[in-house]
Amino acid sequence: MPRTHISAETDRTDLTITREFDSLREHVFRAFVDPVLYVRWQGPRRLTTRLEFFEPRTGGSYRTVQTDIDGSLHAFHGVYHEVSAPERIISTFEYEGLPERGHGVLDATSFEALPGGRTRVTVHSAFLSVEDRDGMLHAGMEEGLDEMYEQLDELLRELS
Amino acid sequence: MPRTHISAETDRTDLTITREFDSLREHVFRAFVDPVLYVRWQGPRRLTTRLEFFEPRTGGSYRTVQTDIDGSLHAFHGVYHEVSAPERIISTFEYEGLPERGHGVLDATSFEALPGGRTRVTVHSAFLSVEDRDGMLHAGMEEGLDEMYEQLDELLRELS
Repeated sequence: MPRTHISAETDRTDLTITREFDSLREHVFRAFVDPVLYVRWQGPRRLTTRLEFFEPRTGGSYRTVQTDIDGSLHAFHGVYHEVSAPERIISTFEYEGLPERGHGVLDATSFEALPGGRTRVTVHSAFLSVEDRDGMLHAGMEEGLDEMYEQLDELLRELS
Repeated sequence: MPRTHISAETDRTDLTITREFDSLREHVFRAFVDPVLYVRWQGPRRLTTRLEFFEPRTGGSYRTVQTDIDGSLHAFHGVYHEVSAPERIISTFEYEGLPERGHGVLDATSFEALPGGRTRVTVHSAFLSVEDRDGMLHAGMEEGLDEMYEQLDELLRELS
């Protein structure tokens, strides 16, 4: 059973991702904003992640370039609407591999401290159209997230 | 009949605003990014608009403070995900008067040149919840937009 839960109602433009981590909220949050940690868990394992720029603060920007095993590149970029440690990050996201520009997404990521030193991460994504959202869902999003968050689990075990 | 059209399907998190202007696309776009012009048409007429900062470029930020006739203040802020003159602006928006932070909105504004020197502006807004969207709709959004765009009509007549 996958540990990552994705909720996406039909004919809507939003979706919600929920995942729990066996680590303190401060550590989980740090893995989202520390560039050295961040590149270690982004994307499926076969991709290598490089940050062209990474400014995880309110008003900052980022651009991430990932190299696949066949050498092909995948890039995405966005801006940070809000970074409030250790509880919330609101940022935009746009995958540069789409046929045209203009398909931005708004992601609100919240970090909730749970009993027993655990943390629940909830990502609420608002897309500009149902097609944009469903395109992301059908591009293997669930499997990609599972593998990405497994890498984050491994990293968090090192931090604790 | 209001000249501003708002489309918002039940139980969805997005909405679309459409408005045509009797002015060239370059002029309409300029009114969205020139600070001197921008403050002249923002909000209903009774409000006076001041820009704390205003950086309408990809990666820029803004914060706008409006003063009502009774002296009360309304502020909102956000970041620019993309500014591509003269066709598209994608930015975030958050009204600071809400009881809590975290209710950002993603706005994709497109500027389409029409025959006869006219321009169609389409604003597609992606909210993080149905409640966030409906709250904005029920706060007198339609009347506010009508009056705001009438002021923009007047400004555009001066520019042409």
